[in-house]
Amino acid sequence: MTPPRSLVIGAPDWLDEVVDWRARYRSDEDRMRVAVELARQNVLRGSGGPFGAGVFESNGGRLVAAAVNSVTRLNNSVLHAETLAIMLAQARLGTYALGSAGDDSYLLVTSCEPCAMCLGATLWSGVRGLVCGAAKEDATAVGFDEGPVFAESWAYLERRGVRTARGVLRGEAAAVLELYRATGGAIYNA
Amino acid sequence: MTPPRSLVIGAPDWLDEVVDWRARYRSDEDRMRVAVELARQNVLRGSGGPFGAGVFESNGGRLVAAAVNSVTRLNNSVLHAETLAIMLAQARLGTYALGSAGDDSYLLVTSCEPCAMCLGATLWSGVRGLVCGAAKEDATAVGFDEGPVFAESWAYLERRGVRTARGVLRGEAAAVLELYRATGGAIYNA
Repeated sequence: MTPPRSLVIGAPDWLDEVVDWRARYRSDEDRMRVAVELARQNVLRGSGGPFGAGVFESNGGRLVAAAVNSVTRLNNSVLHAETLAIMLAQARLGTYALGSAGDDSYLLVTSCEPCAMCLGATLWSGVRGLVCGAAKEDATAVGFDEGPVFAESWAYLERRGVRTARGVLRGEAAAVLELYRATGGAIYNA
Repeated sequence: MTPPRSLVIGAPDWLDEVVDWRARYRSDEDRMRVAVELARQNVLRGSGGPFGAGVFESNGGRLVAAAVNSVTRLNNSVLHAETLAIMLAQARLGTYALGSAGDDSYLLVTSCEPCAMCLGATLWSGVRGLVCGAAKEDATAVGFDEGPVFAESWAYLERRGVRTARGVLRGEAAAVLELYRATGGAIYNA
């Protein structure tokens, strides 16, 4: 057992089969379909928890980074879909501050409302918007804990200039959580 | 610009010069000295923000993983000292759940009270304790934002069985924040 010097964090090998990187995603619903499909594929392929996320250009509509929950696959409790999407987007754009990258601004689109960690990560990422599918209640209904997220946490995001939209395609997004429960998926960190 | 498939997250090259991996750190103060020295070296060597953290065995006293704030060095806003220490500890122990790893339990020791993201990450990591040096007020005094962390957030940790200790070597820890300000360090994401 020697101390680790570096980590390699990779996407699941099926990612490019389900993501169209060349499309332009113009509406919150178009973008949410990507996040929900990532979540669903993560369940169907048994590669992790029922959560998907992407970082998109606000105006150009391009998908900058796509991620799925990778906690069990990579033995890393930090790798929720949202944190991983943020890290991949920042690697692609070469900056830790998406708020000052290029000519466009960026949105984080997630298949479920963020936990406390991911809500904080959203703040520091520099995205100008956070778009959510399933609600906290949908996640807790299948056994996941979202942690200390309060109404004041959401207000904090808004005050920092992050537009928030919740409940986008909520039914489709919540159905993936139910699919996960129905197929016996592990509720890690419960 | 092609979509990223993987990330490599490495420690700064000086890490082993300042960390004694073979020592046993028996008290919160012993452990905090490690976290504060990591933070100080990160400032002195210009490799990032004034924050250091480690994951330690609660009983054995071994240092499992050590990390420094790596936001600017690696262009990654998720890589606070705490999140990186957790990820490295889990890689070393081969589990996403430090609460059920091996015979010992684990503590996260950080030179400054965690931001909202890192407080959430602490919950999901499975550590049984969180030991903090500088206070939120010390961080905000030099310009850092800790995000939506409330008294109820700390209570949430305690209810989940995470022992919290705050203000351990607070003076030494806060001095590193002042050193950072005095040397003109960037306040990223402000």
